[in-house]
Amino acid sequence: MNLNKNFFNLEESYLFSNVAKKVANFKEENPNADIIKLGIGDVTLPLCTAVVEELQKAVLEMGKKESFRGYGPEQGYDFLREKVKGYYKEKGVDLEVEEIFISDGAKSDIANILDIFDKDNSVLIPDPVYPVYVDTNVMAGRKIEYLCANKENNFLPLPTKDLRGSIIYLCSPNNPTGSVYDREQLKQWVDFAIENSAVILFDAAYESFIEDEELPRSIFEIDGAKKCAIEFCSFSKMAGFTGTRCGYTVVPMSLEFGGVKLNRLWLRRQTTKFNGVPYIVQRGAAAVFSKEGMEQIKENLNYYKENARIISKALEELGIYYTGGKNSPYIWLKCPNDMGSWEFFDYLLKEANVVGTPGSGFGKNGEGFFRLTAFGDRQNTIEAVRRISDLSF
Amino acid sequence: MNLNKNFFNLEESYLFSNVAKKVANFKEENPNADIIKLGIGDVTLPLCTAVVEELQKAVLEMGKKESFRGYGPEQGYDFLREKVKGYYKEKGVDLEVEEIFISDGAKSDIANILDIFDKDNSVLIPDPVYPVYVDTNVMAGRKIEYLCANKENNFLPLPTKDLRGSIIYLCSPNNPTGSVYDREQLKQWVDFAIENSAVILFDAAYESFIEDEELPRSIFEIDGAKKCAIEFCSFSKMAGFTGTRCGYTVVPMSLEFGGVKLNRLWLRRQTTKFNGVPYIVQRGAAAVFSKEGMEQIKENLNYYKENARIISKALEELGIYYTGGKNSPYIWLKCPNDMGSWEFFDYLLKEANVVGTPGSGFGKNGEGFFRLTAFGDRQNTIEAVRRISDLSF
Repeated sequence: MNLNKNFFNLEESYLFSNVAKKVANFKEENPNADIIKLGIGDVTLPLCTAVVEELQKAVLEMGKKESFRGYGPEQGYDFLREKVKGYYKEKGVDLEVEEIFISDGAKSDIANILDIFDKDNSVLIPDPVYPVYVDTNVMAGRKIEYLCANKENNFLPLPTKDLRGSIIYLCSPNNPTGSVYDREQLKQWVDFAIENSAVILFDAAYESFIEDEELPRSIFEIDGAKKCAIEFCSFSKMAGFTGTRCGYTVVPMSLEFGGVKLNRLWLRRQTTKFNGVPYIVQRGAAAVFSKEGMEQIKENLNYYKENARIISKALEELGIYYTGGKNSPYIWLKCPNDMGSWEFFDYLLKEANVVGTPGSGFGKNGEGFFRLTAFGDRQNTIEAVRRISDLSF
Repeated sequence: MNLNKNFFNLEESYLFSNVAKKVANFKEENPNADIIKLGIGDVTLPLCTAVVEELQKAVLEMGKKESFRGYGPEQGYDFLREKVKGYYKEKGVDLEVEEIFISDGAKSDIANILDIFDKDNSVLIPDPVYPVYVDTNVMAGRKIEYLCANKENNFLPLPTKDLRGSIIYLCSPNNPTGSVYDREQLKQWVDFAIENSAVILFDAAYESFIEDEELPRSIFEIDGAKKCAIEFCSFSKMAGFTGTRCGYTVVPMSLEFGGVKLNRLWLRRQTTKFNGVPYIVQRGAAAVFSKEGMEQIKENLNYYKENARIISKALEELGIYYTGGKNSPYIWLKCPNDMGSWEFFDYLLKEANVVGTPGSGFGKNGEGFFRLTAFGDRQNTIEAVRRISDLSF
C-alpha cells in the first residue's frame, strides 16, 4: 500500500485554531471582558421564511408514499436548475439548463473539479487566498505559481506577458480582501486564458454582495468567458445556507479543449462520484428565487451590507487603508502603525476586545493586513467600531 | 491545458438507459400492457414518521436566529456520530466518535476515499460489481484486477495464494448478487489484507437487510479488521434516504500504513474538499436511531424483506438457481434455459410484462444472470411473481 504522498506536502493551517486559542486564553485571564467577534466568515441571520416554508412542505412530501422522492438526478432537479437559469438571465447571461450543476456548496465543486484535469497542468493562484485552492492542488501534486495581490494592485492581480499557467483561480468579490474585478480587468483574464489555452475557475460565492451595477456579478458577463471559464456559486452567503448546503456550478457547453467538452467530463465525474443534493434542500434553494424569497434575502443581505458600511466608514475616518467593505462582506485593512497581522490581532483583542482574522493566515502577501467581516450582529458591529475608533494608533 | 486522459478509458454503461429504451418501445407497441418494474435499486416507501417529525423541528430551528446553525463540522455533528457509535455497539463493535465520518451517502465516500491512496496501487474488484468501484479507479488511472464471482463460489470470491492487490473492494450483502460473506470468509480476506499490506474498502450499504444472526453486519466484527478496513454505510436503504442523502464512513484509528493513520488523511481530505451534510438532514438521520425510529424503519425493512421472500419462494418452486433473497433486497437468478441476460430481459418483458436488470450490465461474469429487487410495491411483487410462475421455461 502506497499512500498519496502529496498529502505530506500540505501545510497545516493553524489560523483559526490559533485565533480560538488566543481568544480562550484572553477570556480566562479576563473573565468579564465583553468580546466581539468580527472574524468568522459564517452568516448569523436565520433562513428566510419563504425557504423555511418550502423546506417544511418538502419534508411533508417525503413522508407520504405518493409524493416521496428517492434518488434524484446527480446534476440537480430541473425545477432548481431552471430557477438558476432565470437568475443568470437577469444578469444578462443566457445559459442552458444542462450547463448548470446543483452542488452541495461551492467548496466541494471547486475542489472536485480538479478531477477532470491532468496532474501536470500548472496552476495560478492569487496570494492572499482562500486556502482550499492551494490545498486541493497540493493534494493532487500540481505545481502552483502565486499571483501577487497587494496594495499596489489593490489586491486585484492582472495577467502579465510572461505569465504561464493552465488553471487560473479568480475569486471576485474576493475572500479575504473584498476586492472586486471590473469588466475591463476580467476581460484581460479572459483574453489571457483563451490565448494560453487555460481554464479560469471563477469563484463567485459573494456575487450577491455586489451593489455597483457597473461591476460584473458573473464572469459570463464578459465576452469570451464561455470559452474559458467555469463559475462556482453558492446559496451560503446569498441566502444563509452555510449549514443547509447548496450551490451551483456552471460549465458552459462551449468550453472545450482538444474538442472535448468539459461539461461532459464534469457530468461523468458527478454521476460517478456524487449522488446529488437532498431533494428537500433543493426545494428550499428554489424558494430563494421566488418573489418573497428574493425580497427576504435582500433584506438579510442589506443588513450585512450596512454592517460593512459601518466598518468601512470608521476606517475611512481613521485614515486606515482598506479594500472591500463595498460590494463585499469582507473588510481587508492595513494594520495601523505598520503592525504585523498577529501583532494587531493581539492589540485589538487586548485594547478593544474585538476579534478579527490576521491577514498573514491567508498567504504571505497578507502579512501586515487584517480581515473583518460584516456577518456579525448590528449592535455588536457598532460597538466594535466605536471601540476601534477610540483607540490611539 | 491537458485533460485527465483516464476519463477517455471509461466505458459508458448503457445498462439502465437501454432498459429504459426497451421498456419505452414496448409500451409504445403495447399501450395497454400493465408493466411491473422490479429492476430499480431505489426504495419506494416514504421516510418514517420519527424522521419526518425531527426534520420538521430542525427546519423550524433554522428559521430562528437563536437556534440557527451555520457551518457545522465537516465530519458531522457529534449528536449523530454518537448515535452511529451506539448502533455499532449493538453489533458488538466498539468505535470512537473520531472514527466515524458522516457523509452525504456511501457513493461519495467510496469514490472520494481514493484521494488518499497513491495512483500506483493495484486494485481488486469483484465481477459482477457496482460500477462505481470500477469507474472511479479508471478515472484515477489505476490498474484493476477482477475477482471472479460465479455460481461455483456462490458469487463470494475468496483470496488465493497468488493474488496481489493493495486496494480490495468487498460488498456484503452484495449488489448485485445478494450474496453475503460469513465470518470465516471475511476472516480470510482480513488475513489476506494484513499479510499483503492492503486495505479493504467494505461496502456495508445493505447491512440492515441481514436477519441471520450468524452473519456479520460489519467487517469490524472480524478480528483484525480495524487494522486493514474502512467501512462505508448509508441511511439510503436502511431508512429510505436515497433522496435525503446521508451515510457514514468508519476509518479506524488503528488503520495505518508506514506509521501514517488513514483517519488523519481522510479527515484532512474531508475538511479540505467537503463542507459536511446539512444540519437538517443530520437531525433526521439521528432520529432513525430513536426507539420509534428503529421500530418504524424495521417495519419498512420487513416489508421489503417479505417481498424478497415472495420472489425467492417462487424461484425455488420453479427450480431456478439464485443467490440473495435472504439477508438482502436483491435476488440474482440464473436465466432459465441458458438464456442470455438480455434475451431473458426481452422474454420477461414480452411474456410477463415484468422488468428486471440484465446481469451482464454488472460485468462479464453477470452474463446469463438477472437481478430482481425487493423494493417494489407488495401487490405488484405478488403479481409479477404470479406471472413469472405461469411462464413455461
